Amino acid sequence: MTDIAALDAADPLAGFRDRFEIPDGLVYLDGNSLGCLPKATKARLADVVEREWGQDLIRSWNTNDWINAPRRIGAKIARLIGAHDDEVIVGDTTSINVFKCLSASLQLDSSRVVLLSETGNFPTDVYMMEGLAAIAPDRISPRLVEPERIHEALDDDVAVLLLTQTNYRSGRIRDMKAITEAAHARGIPVIWDLSHSCGALPVDLNGCNADFAVGCGYKYLNGGPGAPAFTFVARRHQDSVFPALSGWLGHKVPFEFTDDYQPAPGIDRFQCGTPGILGCAALEVGVDLLLEADMSDIRRKSSALGDLFIALVHEHCADHGFKLASPGNADERGSQVSFHHPEGYAIMQALIARGVIGDFRAPDILRFGFAPLYNSYADVEQAVATLTEIMETGSWDTEEFKQKAAVT
Amino acid sequence: MTDIAALDAADPLAGFRDRFEIPDGLVYLDGNSLGCLPKATKARLADVVEREWGQDLIRSWNTNDWINAPRRIGAKIARLIGAHDDEVIVGDTTSINVFKCLSASLQLDSSRVVLLSETGNFPTDVYMMEGLAAIAPDRISPRLVEPERIHEALDDDVAVLLLTQTNYRSGRIRDMKAITEAAHARGIPVIWDLSHSCGALPVDLNGCNADFAVGCGYKYLNGGPGAPAFTFVARRHQDSVFPALSGWLGHKVPFEFTDDYQPAPGIDRFQCGTPGILGCAALEVGVDLLLEADMSDIRRKSSALGDLFIALVHEHCADHGFKLASPGNADERGSQVSFHHPEGYAIMQALIARGVIGDFRAPDILRFGFAPLYNSYADVEQAVATLTEIMETGSWDTEEFKQKAAVT
Repeated sequence: MTDIAALDAADPLAGFRDRFEIPDGLVYLDGNSLGCLPKATKARLADVVEREWGQDLIRSWNTNDWINAPRRIGAKIARLIGAHDDEVIVGDTTSINVFKCLSASLQLDSSRVVLLSETGNFPTDVYMMEGLAAIAPDRISPRLVEPERIHEALDDDVAVLLLTQTNYRSGRIRDMKAITEAAHARGIPVIWDLSHSCGALPVDLNGCNADFAVGCGYKYLNGGPGAPAFTFVARRHQDSVFPALSGWLGHKVPFEFTDDYQPAPGIDRFQCGTPGILGCAALEVGVDLLLEADMSDIRRKSSALGDLFIALVHEHCADHGFKLASPGNADERGSQVSFHHPEGYAIMQALIARGVIGDFRAPDILRFGFAPLYNSYADVEQAVATLTEIMETGSWDTEEFKQKAAVT
Repeated sequence: MTDIAALDAADPLAGFRDRFEIPDGLVYLDGNSLGCLPKATKARLADVVEREWGQDLIRSWNTNDWINAPRRIGAKIARLIGAHDDEVIVGDTTSINVFKCLSASLQLDSSRVVLLSETGNFPTDVYMMEGLAAIAPDRISPRLVEPERIHEALDDDVAVLLLTQTNYRSGRIRDMKAITEAAHARGIPVIWDLSHSCGALPVDLNGCNADFAVGCGYKYLNGGPGAPAFTFVARRHQDSVFPALSGWLGHKVPFEFTDDYQPAPGIDRFQCGTPGILGCAALEVGVDLLLEADMSDIRRKSSALGDLFIALVHEHCADHGFKLASPGNADERGSQVSFHHPEGYAIMQALIARGVIGDFRAPDILRFGFAPLYNSYADVEQAVATLTEIMETGSWDTEEFKQKAAVT
């Protein structure tokens, strides 16, 4: 029998839990959807609102350095993902940033016309491909292939490959280095969506010779609901391309208010409109907190939490119809564990009603995320104990739990 | 001599000033760039952070109705701009929303290829036109003409006309009804940028038979720095077009996570990624406050403040080289007054150093905005007194004041 208390006692990250608001009695395994609130965020936001906005007003763009927030926070995120500090900029949403990278990558070789991705990728990524292609349907085509057919689809028509490093449903990690190499061998740049990777596992964009990447601020970066996202563009591409979303803050001299667009040097051209300062402020606190931790400790604990969860579900719920949807090997898995179950939706609602929060992903996946900064081994034990009780009593089987909410 | 105290005493909006944080001793005439902080925003944001995010976490998408924030706040803004409540949605930035409307409008008549706007429009609007056209350069062309040549440029090639109702430099108001009619007579839809109109003067989109509009949340709506923007799409167009920025939250069934994009019915398809909830919460407080006021009172006071400012500058600074850049007739002017002056930048810095905050717009414009909810007639008097003193003493003429900051 695993000694859970000993695992938590020996956890080098255990001290981080107290830096977050964790509601009493809650086992929160949904940090891969919305990360918990860092305690420091409250005071930081109050200061931004009351002093920076309330008192300093428009002057804050200069005096409180609002204008550099996207660059400054981008440089911090760069340290989490193996990028140089001038390769990452914060702003807009992951969807919008996918579009920026897609439109930019099309400029690298105008003879190539196919936007390639895989079925089962996070939907917004492939929807943005469709939207971009619809602007120039005679020239640009989106193409989706099964995940196992990506390599054979890398032909001379492909302008760019868009993939997610850690799959949102299964948690399976793509081999970023091998795929990037294979694509480059065919002259194809790659856009990596790091939404379910950044802050949860070591990412080495430059070690993989990556071209473009995007990622989400509100999951493992703990930046708050709908936090700004980020965009990575390798130095070697920055001055060769520009985003079709060519807004004024990506201009070389935005405050000269000229009639013609001239992209700023470097990563700055990937800015578009005015950054949301409240969202940036909250995101920066979350990123600063992550930077205090050692990413190899995070990864080690993430793997251990997932392994323990799988082992306990197999031990206690073997007869209840769960089928592992994630890789059993932690090296192939991000910081989540997913199970198929035909009654997954109702089971998840029953768990949530008992204070164990994961989420459901259609059609049949129960998803449990592990945020090593604040989740404990005791959280995992409690989650499986609750799941076991729900399955043994059949208490999930009610109309109430089967009633789908607006957001699942 | 004007009795300033009597004007303030008779002001039906005077009570609103106390609903805002106004820093002691400051005359803030830059609400057309960043509106002041409503006092109620502080508690609202603390609640969103501490309870909704901190305690309720991911459940807030349903229980605190985060998922409907863009629609709910959009419906409130609709009341300020003459729209139906299902015609406006909040999210992203003005720049991004211009792109959504441009890409959508191109779908109305695929034989038309020109994106038309005017020189001197707010730069981001024309930059977004350029970016969109660069995706399909063989098909789409941006075209800028001088403001007075817009009518003759409305030919059969024009796919869409993009104009700003209230010019950001001069404050001149375009005749939305007449221009929309003229464009429609040539089969051309119009996108109106309301950034310097909404919340400052009555706007009647449906009365003008408008097609598309966008607007800014952080100016007269007092939504905070980088607040989410909004998009208006007339009911008659909503189901015929979709934005090229076709993100997952604009999908018909986002939580089914399908591989193919199917736009949601109605205005919802103009959503893209996950909305920034902190920004939405602050914006909603600002909009709610505006909805308590009578728009005709706002317009009347706005005109009076501007007229008084012009009269006092003419009276006291006639010899100092200022040239009115705004219409003298208040009916043709938004809620700002601008003056040309060759030393405008340094003069504005000197004003700011003395607690009178306006802003500078290249190449030579001093811009003073009037927010009728919190600016008083005494503010106007104090601003001109300070300007007069600066000009009479020549105290603007220093190296410090001529040194340009990152943000002007």
